Amino acid sequence: MSKDFSVTVLGSSSAIPTKDRFPTSQLVCCYGRYYLLDCGEGTQIQLRKYKLSFQRIDRIFISHLHADHFLGLPGLLSTMDLLGRTKEIHIHTFDELNLFMDGFMKSTFTEFSFRVHIHVMSKKKSTVLFENKHIEISTIPLKHSIPCNGFLIKEKRKLFNLKKTALKKYEPSIEQIHHIKSGGDLVLSDGSVVPNAELTMIPPATKAYAFVTDTCYYESIIPFIEGVDLLYHEATFAENLKERAKSTMHSTAKQAAEIALKANVKKLMIGHYSVRYENTDILLKEAQLVFPDTFCSTEGLEVEI
Amino acid sequence: MSKDFSVTVLGSSSAIPTKDRFPTSQLVCCYGRYYLLDCGEGTQIQLRKYKLSFQRIDRIFISHLHADHFLGLPGLLSTMDLLGRTKEIHIHTFDELNLFMDGFMKSTFTEFSFRVHIHVMSKKKSTVLFENKHIEISTIPLKHSIPCNGFLIKEKRKLFNLKKTALKKYEPSIEQIHHIKSGGDLVLSDGSVVPNAELTMIPPATKAYAFVTDTCYYESIIPFIEGVDLLYHEATFAENLKERAKSTMHSTAKQAAEIALKANVKKLMIGHYSVRYENTDILLKEAQLVFPDTFCSTEGLEVEI
Repeated sequence: MSKDFSVTVLGSSSAIPTKDRFPTSQLVCCYGRYYLLDCGEGTQIQLRKYKLSFQRIDRIFISHLHADHFLGLPGLLSTMDLLGRTKEIHIHTFDELNLFMDGFMKSTFTEFSFRVHIHVMSKKKSTVLFENKHIEISTIPLKHSIPCNGFLIKEKRKLFNLKKTALKKYEPSIEQIHHIKSGGDLVLSDGSVVPNAELTMIPPATKAYAFVTDTCYYESIIPFIEGVDLLYHEATFAENLKERAKSTMHSTAKQAAEIALKANVKKLMIGHYSVRYENTDILLKEAQLVFPDTFCSTEGLEVEI
Repeated sequence: MSKDFSVTVLGSSSAIPTKDRFPTSQLVCCYGRYYLLDCGEGTQIQLRKYKLSFQRIDRIFISHLHADHFLGLPGLLSTMDLLGRTKEIHIHTFDELNLFMDGFMKSTFTEFSFRVHIHVMSKKKSTVLFENKHIEISTIPLKHSIPCNGFLIKEKRKLFNLKKTALKKYEPSIEQIHHIKSGGDLVLSDGSVVPNAELTMIPPATKAYAFVTDTCYYESIIPFIEGVDLLYHEATFAENLKERAKSTMHSTAKQAAEIALKANVKKLMIGHYSVRYENTDILLKEAQLVFPDTFCSTEGLEVEI
């Protein structure tokens, strides 16, 4: 994972894993730091398989507390501990995870050599969970059988790059350069103003990734994911099991594609496949009929955002 | 697994799994029923990989409550539930597992459709945990950093098979046949006695399997495992890390072999390899120097006892 902003799929299965598919987990790399989205059973094994460093993960985001989305946590944290981690780790999820982790810690007679901060998310409204100079991570409230949040990871506005010709012509001070890079105009000593557009090149577009699992078809998420570069949307069932999708509060592949279309996203990645689909072609085809730029998540797939 | 008595290795790793090695778990098949010994993270994935039916498992034995020996439990039970299990399941382990399972059940808002009975083992003395007409499973108290039991699975004495010639000659009644098969003599109507040896063939020998993990070198286990057909003994380290084995209360491969030799077992299988041994040849060689009939456990290996 050498890209500035990319995602690696660690698990593409829904609740029942298969011999090839692990439960949900994805690793997002943003400017050298790793962010783990969900942590199904076996996540630590997948991280090893794809040679992804555990210790670069500082933040873990757990969408909801169904077993297939968080059971890899105690094993991952235990291994981090055995490998000598001392740096604190942050987990963003719902309050009930404390019950699980408390039970685990008490049953195993151990304490980690690093602090685990569990930050409780809002169940109802979108909130910013984390930001640094590069990115911001916020929640996307979903509709599932228990409280569940998706996550939106978006790059912050990038700084403008100065044109070399402008630098040479006006010789701005360090302070003035900072001002221009942030989008400001240059005020010369005679009081005249050189507009920013004349001084800078358009910065590269900011990118965004939306991780949406588990949820039924839910148009309320569209304002949050509008125009993202990549949408991951669960697609547990094919269209002939639309009623089952509804009753279990999951989505069909076609519904995932409809959301992608309505939200005008650039690309759609589907996943969270039911165990009944040994081959996921039917899911892909049904989605592509609605939203052609769809592809399937598979274990080990790395996608540049 | 079609044999009367066999074991399939699901995980051969110690605490830190690798891309190829899962944490400890073994599935023992005895006369059509499955018994799970330890249940490290990913056990359900391994069961799927090797096409072993979850629902034939009625009893799970957890040696101790270090994370790499039981973290696969909630996922396995959840999947059994999703697959429609209604039959109760029995788990033999220490009391602290209740804290972990309680935390899990509360955090996930769910209840299983089958009962989970957690039977608490003695920490100090060997006890019989389970028996049916074919086998008996008892504990082997080990010496580790926390309470830990190995398990001894032994076949019960088999019934004698009647010689066809004797059946024809004496025409015993059904009751008399049961008596003879259990080792009794035949009393004829004239009061004379036909000794059992004249009526029956020697039954096949009863077999025994001992599962010994995690432990330091501990000769006190020898009386329990004396002469077993197969001994699985942990061999976390090579001999140059004997001091590390001692301080972490694990065994070296040579120590495992010394126990096998002193206990006069027929075969030794080693495992629970430290992550540092990508190749386990050194462990195998060191053990074979002491006990030639040693082999390595590897994922998916099925051994007939």
